[in-house]
Amino acid sequence: MKELLFGTAYYPEYMPYDRLETDIAMMKAAGMNVIRIAESTWSTLEPQDGTFDFSFIDRVLEAAEREGLSVIVGTPTYAVPAWLARKEPEVMALGAGGRNLYGRRQLMDIVNPAFRYHAERVIRRLAEHTARHPRVIGFQIDNETKHYGMASENVQELFVAYLKEKFRTTENLNRAFGLAYWSNSIHDWKDFPDMRGCVNAGLACEFGKFQRTLAAQYLVWQRDLVSEYKREDQFITHNFDFEWKKFGADIAQDGYSYGVQPDISHYEAAEAVTVAGTDIYHPTQDALTGAEIAFGGDSVRSLKQDNYFVLECQAQAFKYWTPYPGQLRLHAYSHLASGADAVLYWNWHSIHNGYETYWKGLLSHDLETNPTYEEACQIGREWKEKGTLLRQLKKKNRAALLMDTQSLHALRWFPIDKELSYNDVVRHMYDALYEMNIECDVVDVHGLEEERYDLLIAPALYSVSEDLIGRLAAFVKRGGVLVSSFRSFVADEHLSVYADAAPHGLTDCFGMSYNRFTEPGTTKLAGEPARYFCELLRPDTAETLAAYEHKYWGAYSGATRNRYGQGCAYYIGTYTSPEFLKTVYADAAEKAGIPLPDVRWPLIVRSGETPAAGVLHYIFNYSADERSMSCPYEETKELLTGKRYRRGDTIAFKDWDVVILQEVKNED
Amino acid sequence: MKELLFGTAYYPEYMPYDRLETDIAMMKAAGMNVIRIAESTWSTLEPQDGTFDFSFIDRVLEAAEREGLSVIVGTPTYAVPAWLARKEPEVMALGAGGRNLYGRRQLMDIVNPAFRYHAERVIRRLAEHTARHPRVIGFQIDNETKHYGMASENVQELFVAYLKEKFRTTENLNRAFGLAYWSNSIHDWKDFPDMRGCVNAGLACEFGKFQRTLAAQYLVWQRDLVSEYKREDQFITHNFDFEWKKFGADIAQDGYSYGVQPDISHYEAAEAVTVAGTDIYHPTQDALTGAEIAFGGDSVRSLKQDNYFVLECQAQAFKYWTPYPGQLRLHAYSHLASGADAVLYWNWHSIHNGYETYWKGLLSHDLETNPTYEEACQIGREWKEKGTLLRQLKKKNRAALLMDTQSLHALRWFPIDKELSYNDVVRHMYDALYEMNIECDVVDVHGLEEERYDLLIAPALYSVSEDLIGRLAAFVKRGGVLVSSFRSFVADEHLSVYADAAPHGLTDCFGMSYNRFTEPGTTKLAGEPARYFCELLRPDTAETLAAYEHKYWGAYSGATRNRYGQGCAYYIGTYTSPEFLKTVYADAAEKAGIPLPDVRWPLIVRSGETPAAGVLHYIFNYSADERSMSCPYEETKELLTGKRYRRGDTIAFKDWDVVILQEVKNED
Amino acid sequence: MKELLFGTAYYPEYMPYDRLETDIAMMKAAGMNVIRIAESTWSTLEPQDGTFDFSFIDRVLEAAEREGLSVIVGTPTYAVPAWLARKEPEVMALGAGGRNLYGRRQLMDIVNPAFRYHAERVIRRLAEHTARHPRVIGFQIDNETKHYGMASENVQELFVAYLKEKFRTTENLNRAFGLAYWSNSIHDWKDFPDMRGCVNAGLACEFGKFQRTLAAQYLVWQRDLVSEYKREDQFITHNFDFEWKKFGADIAQDGYSYGVQPDISHYEAAEAVTVAGTDIYHPTQDALTGAEIAFGGDSVRSLKQDNYFVLECQAQAFKYWTPYPGQLRLHAYSHLASGADAVLYWNWHSIHNGYETYWKGLLSHDLETNPTYEEACQIGREWKEKGTLLRQLKKKNRAALLMDTQSLHALRWFPIDKELSYNDVVRHMYDALYEMNIECDVVDVHGLEEERYDLLIAPALYSVSEDLIGRLAAFVKRGGVLVSSFRSFVADEHLSVYADAAPHGLTDCFGMSYNRFTEPGTTKLAGEPARYFCELLRPDTAETLAAYEHKYWGAYSGATRNRYGQGCAYYIGTYTSPEFLKTVYADAAEKAGIPLPDVRWPLIVRSGETPAAGVLHYIFNYSADERSMSCPYEETKELLTGKRYRRGDTIAFKDWDVVILQEVKNED
Repeated sequence: MKELLFGTAYYPEYMPYDRLETDIAMMKAAGMNVIRIAESTWSTLEPQDGTFDFSFIDRVLEAAEREGLSVIVGTPTYAVPAWLARKEPEVMALGAGGRNLYGRRQLMDIVNPAFRYHAERVIRRLAEHTARHPRVIGFQIDNETKHYGMASENVQELFVAYLKEKFRTTENLNRAFGLAYWSNSIHDWKDFPDMRGCVNAGLACEFGKFQRTLAAQYLVWQRDLVSEYKREDQFITHNFDFEWKKFGADIAQDGYSYGVQPDISHYEAAEAVTVAGTDIYHPTQDALTGAEIAFGGDSVRSLKQDNYFVLECQAQAFKYWTPYPGQLRLHAYSHLASGADAVLYWNWHSIHNGYETYWKGLLSHDLETNPTYEEACQIGREWKEKGTLLRQLKKKNRAALLMDTQSLHALRWFPIDKELSYNDVVRHMYDALYEMNIECDVVDVHGLEEERYDLLIAPALYSVSEDLIGRLAAFVKRGGVLVSSFRSFVADEHLSVYADAAPHGLTDCFGMSYNRFTEPGTTKLAGEPARYFCELLRPDTAETLAAYEHKYWGAYSGATRNRYGQGCAYYIGTYTSPEFLKTVYADAAEKAGIPLPDVRWPLIVRSGETPAAGVLHYIFNYSADERSMSCPYEETKELLTGKRYRRGDTIAFKDWDVVILQEVKNED
Repeated sequence: MKELLFGTAYYPEYMPYDRLETDIAMMKAAGMNVIRIAESTWSTLEPQDGTFDFSFIDRVLEAAEREGLSVIVGTPTYAVPAWLARKEPEVMALGAGGRNLYGRRQLMDIVNPAFRYHAERVIRRLAEHTARHPRVIGFQIDNETKHYGMASENVQELFVAYLKEKFRTTENLNRAFGLAYWSNSIHDWKDFPDMRGCVNAGLACEFGKFQRTLAAQYLVWQRDLVSEYKREDQFITHNFDFEWKKFGADIAQDGYSYGVQPDISHYEAAEAVTVAGTDIYHPTQDALTGAEIAFGGDSVRSLKQDNYFVLECQAQAFKYWTPYPGQLRLHAYSHLASGADAVLYWNWHSIHNGYETYWKGLLSHDLETNPTYEEACQIGREWKEKGTLLRQLKKKNRAALLMDTQSLHALRWFPIDKELSYNDVVRHMYDALYEMNIECDVVDVHGLEEERYDLLIAPALYSVSEDLIGRLAAFVKRGGVLVSSFRSFVADEHLSVYADAAPHGLTDCFGMSYNRFTEPGTTKLAGEPARYFCELLRPDTAETLAAYEHKYWGAYSGATRNRYGQGCAYYIGTYTSPEFLKTVYADAAEKAGIPLPDVRWPLIVRSGETPAAGVLHYIFNYSADERSMSCPYEETKELLTGKRYRRGDTIAFKDWDVVILQEVKNED
Repeated sequence: MKELLFGTAYYPEYMPYDRLETDIAMMKAAGMNVIRIAESTWSTLEPQDGTFDFSFIDRVLEAAEREGLSVIVGTPTYAVPAWLARKEPEVMALGAGGRNLYGRRQLMDIVNPAFRYHAERVIRRLAEHTARHPRVIGFQIDNETKHYGMASENVQELFVAYLKEKFRTTENLNRAFGLAYWSNSIHDWKDFPDMRGCVNAGLACEFGKFQRTLAAQYLVWQRDLVSEYKREDQFITHNFDFEWKKFGADIAQDGYSYGVQPDISHYEAAEAVTVAGTDIYHPTQDALTGAEIAFGGDSVRSLKQDNYFVLECQAQAFKYWTPYPGQLRLHAYSHLASGADAVLYWNWHSIHNGYETYWKGLLSHDLETNPTYEEACQIGREWKEKGTLLRQLKKKNRAALLMDTQSLHALRWFPIDKELSYNDVVRHMYDALYEMNIECDVVDVHGLEEERYDLLIAPALYSVSEDLIGRLAAFVKRGGVLVSSFRSFVADEHLSVYADAAPHGLTDCFGMSYNRFTEPGTTKLAGEPARYFCELLRPDTAETLAAYEHKYWGAYSGATRNRYGQGCAYYIGTYTSPEFLKTVYADAAEKAGIPLPDVRWPLIVRSGETPAAGVLHYIFNYSADERSMSCPYEETKELLTGKRYRRGDTIAFKDWDVVILQEVKNED
């Protein structure tokens, strides 16, 4: 692949009539060069047990060959066929109300041997059938894989075996999780109870971690199968997705990619792919900010510190997301600006029945042209011309935001506030960086290489190992800058709260401690309401950045800064206004030596370097208003128009506009 | 029956002590002439398997004979006795959590053979026992019958047989519903999965349709049983009810008759009765508008284009509905004004225990007189005197509102908005007609005889056959007027969205098309917020009645009008203000040649013709204020007071008042 | 015990490391003299079936002996060990979704024979092991026992046996509950259906009453077991708790002691204890009013008309309840002022894992000193010095508020309003008394000794026997004063509404009747909105205290007063403003000859007499503001400071302050 991939998921299986030729022609007219096929079509590929039918695949591959489209083949395993559920009832996992009924996708028990047997067979057949085809450039294994809250006799048995291996004795197990509480301790492994009833938060989260590992191992297993067939030049990818935030519109037309994925560890599962992929959906129209595209991109890029594929992004999904003119193009460039090398829509066409009828594709149900499709054509034209300049955008971010799935789940058991989830804190801290145009990586604490960074942000890092605490202290001592929110460094990996001064192991680093916290009530910080939670900080060597404003809690600090060794550590004990957080970030960035752009959201600057174009600065206008800014770079050329801007020149933006500045050497 | 029926449901079985004589005397004092008995009393009629006890029935029939009251006998099958549930556990249907527990009514499997066996036996015995009694004027079969979300092994098996019959091959089935999606296609009928897990909207709604048919067939089966016993002069009726809208007051004291019934097709089930009956409950006190009475009446009257019985209406049910002085009488005349020939209260007395203790009857728990009962006495006196003039009111409405249960369910799967149901759109469009005093029929699309009408209203008619579309186009071409809301003419009978320009098959008729829609956001239409949904209409031959007001959607129309053949078709692409809708209706009524009264709600005019009195105009004041209007008729006599009004005379109304104008011939 | 008990629950089993010595030393430093141990630790005491390990108990008893701490030993039965659930699966009760899964506490079937066998064994072993230890002063049986909505084959069978015994024939049963309704009558006991499906409110509430009796009998059974071992000087207690009102914060960190306990009858279960105990939790910080402490104390003290133990009260439980400076001390004295002789915190330390991690103890997770602990030290110092003067506070209240668990449940089936529960009415009527400083007992109607009182308050006493009605009428006739709210005297013990004029049997006593009621809508009373419910009162001999203000309901009274014999009866037909209620109370108190203090909340006066100090008046400032009042007593000494106040002297209060005035004889 020497070009940007631009394309779409494509399911001729779902079409009301045969229009393969028309579809492919319209894709070509839109400048597309890739389609993703086959995932979810098991019952079409294998209509009956052991009977295979690749005719849909074959027709698409032939058309792709003829028209020069590349193809990504998805394994079809995320939805099992009815015959399998009938033949092997235990393929359906156990849910809250007993065994899941067949119908919805992703309700199967992915460790069930019968499921594995049949999944293996269809994967092998499909891979065998397609791998040698010249237009097949890679494989997607499964689809948005998670553990589906999966419980079953198999899973229970495997979990007990895992615990035995990890803890050796029931006494160790009891101690690690405090099972004596409410008489939950066990003294013989065979008494270990059904995890579905568990109310011990630590043990329940250990089970969740185990389930996430099963899901990751399942992907690795698929990778191994596909690897037996794929060519050297073919990639394996997977579409990692994010916590799905419902906005309450019911049934299928609801939700978007909000934050850290709870039910599989991207970090752990990334082993299963050669190129990371992702699905990113986000509010649009007046609610389009670009934050979800940036967050998702920064997360997935950080998995392998490399470019990634956007395997699904929205065309004009349901009524909430019909894009305004210019927005589809703004989405596409925003993905590139985070390091994407592929942008594929979900979906090409709008499906005419089933469950996701109103997850509309580029084509509406009439399957004709429309303004959204026409905007895709514009993107296609531009990328045909300039795509090679834009691909392989590399970043060397000096800031990283730390994320941790275990902390996410811990804070579901022990909520900061019913209105504030772990991901709310993550987004609170990420979005402020984003709006200030401080680019960052988003890294799982288990994969953190802290020496890469000068500034680390720790939102609600509730569950932390002694090892990580030690490394963070050393990071600051060596000159790093650490900014932590409330509810960080509280408990160990098993969610046992550390039994000494908080923040555990870092009281020297932060130069303060606390042992009480409170609901804020009317408490303020820096003139604005402190929200959700106030830790009552007692500075030791730290300076108070802001004290609480309250009759009784006024004696305590709400945010502190501490020089520690060569570095500096900030601690924010409450949910502050974004404005206050940004003043802390500005200070921290300065200490970390990270330059702060003059512009802020809705003008967003994202930069990097590509092999073909050198240093590029994407500048986006995330608003319906025309705007302008002064060029902050010595000498640049706008990549799409060729227009030149020197430092101080006024750059004008239309609504929802995209400007790409290529830095030009003086001798240019 | 040569008189209006006025009476009440009556359950001496539920009385705390024997007061049959007193009750009958109080009914007679109230001018009542009919009681409805026996439905729901299976465990009293057949206390043990095969042992029958008709003593309660007999005592009531004797008293009725003595006092000259007519009696409607209800079959007792809507609640099964405990002995049957114990003897035949599978009589209880399967609910979401397994087999239903005995207790609540209407939880049985109405196709279960054991249920049918026992139901048949008790129905036969009861019919045999009562049919020859001279005071028995008819039978009510079952009670508010619906399919109760009924799932069971029987139902599943019958459904598969039905699908085989309808689709022949699994390939046809897969294609009709798009089952390939999410791997749900089947290739052997024996793989057909349990419908309780189904997530394919089309198939799920087909199942719902099938369940509705089972319910209708169950009523036909009861009719056939009763018909073997009943006399020629006895009617068979059933109390059809409506979608029950909860207002969130919990438990039993909650909800009212809101719109189209979801769980049985009145149209289909009407075959089972010789006279249509209905139960209508509605808000009262300050929230009494008359709209529910009119909507229910227009619906039930249209089933057989004939007069109907109000078998249940409220007396002073729970705290929300204690009527203000005058309101009970206003309710009663409002029923007549829609074509009712019978008004029976539910209930005579207030039940002292059980579940519906606060569904209070005409008598409160003290079983003494009270202002509500006394107002019933006034109604009784008036009807004794004038009832024969009022009965058999016939209407020839030139407007009809089209309803469709399949569309109702389709829009539960694919909501327009979480705040807007199918029935909300129906009521939006019906209520505006009602408030403008444009009388209409409410007809099921499957029973539509479009040649009867000049104006058709289509609210959210999402699921439509090609046949109906063709007939509607022809209706307009011939000179008819059609007014359609958004989300009409979208999908076929299996809920597959039509794969061409929308509105399907009617783009010529409406002179416009659209292929995109959007959440309104800040969009306005005619100066008022467009709500819930905006279809982005592109007029072709149509005129734009109003364009959207929005930075980006301003390029599209929100409401259009198109001359087509001899007729005219209006399309409204969004949920507009009632005021805007009324301007469209006014225009459409003019085009349809339907005269528009000068008065509007809260003054409501309902007209018709009776054999004994000729043309009658009921005029109601649905408000707590005194009002007046100018007489719009040449020469009239107020039927209750004898007062004369000529055109232009001022007619004065007290709060919640009723005026009945009888047109008087000039020679009178 | 010759001293006030001051201490804490203590669970070394839950500690992350051994710090028994440190903990005991810190308790001693805080002036504590008692700990409560062992309840909930079954899996530690009996790690495997029949294997016992009392080492934790022994170490604590040794330390207690050494340091002179008293010990209350709790039986460990509220949470069963995993081995028992595995060995005897039917030990888990049936919940809504089938058999409960092991994990959460209090999900077992307390009448299951296997449960009883194992519970008996562990109780006997523990009692045998500890009863002779000199520091063990008493036993707590089980913990916050309730019936847990317990259904099981055993319970069902016992219930049918109970009904047979009570009603003899199915006909009597049918009649008592009106089972003919909806065909629920039975004619053979073996047809009696599973109570989980029951929708007959009366029968369902009879089942609830039966379940409460099972729970009470279970405690009596534990008492009998413990009594075989305990010394004469050892008490048996139990921690009765209250309706737990959620405030919506989710998971464990949510709720407080709001009102009458629904799921066990304190009155019935009090037989099982020699000293009543209680757990009281309440809002604090700005929401601290003292009302829950007073209500709980007045309830529990009234059980045996004696002093009681506060076995659990909050230290700094979760973020909502971190006390302001002074509040922990205010809590403690408030308990004493209601008659408590023991105040124990739940919990000593904060637990580091499990479910209730954020139900924080006196010590935070760091297990070091903190301001809350330090305030406990102040309490301990004061009580060491003055405790003997404060203990055994006796009250002779002349007012009583009547409560009834059956009415509570009846109003769940037949809600007054979805926003107004039984306990809301109880608290409405209790809190107004409390705020006016009219002290009262809170007594179960089944234990009422009306001759003790001059003023009885009846909030929503829906379900009442003929016997009680007769006694209340006689009480008024003899000169008593009765104040009743709406929804009192409606139904009998089986929830059958009385079939005559309401309020049943008391129309002469109240001098009025009503047979209709209504949702208030815009109705007002005394210028303020009437809320939730209006009974339309028709005075006979009664005076109207206030008529409704409404176009139609203005004809009816909303509150009446009637002289009846030597006494006076007030009836309030709607939920009035607290202000209006207080004017009624002021009038009623005057009629009852009960003096009314000049001060009102936030200054709270609670009085009584102790053996060592004579008459004491606790005065509390429940506010963050400084306040003052004029001394209303002839000659007093402030017990903690020794300061003297004569009538008219100004008494000054700091925020959240406590003043204890000891009456001084003139000759003093």
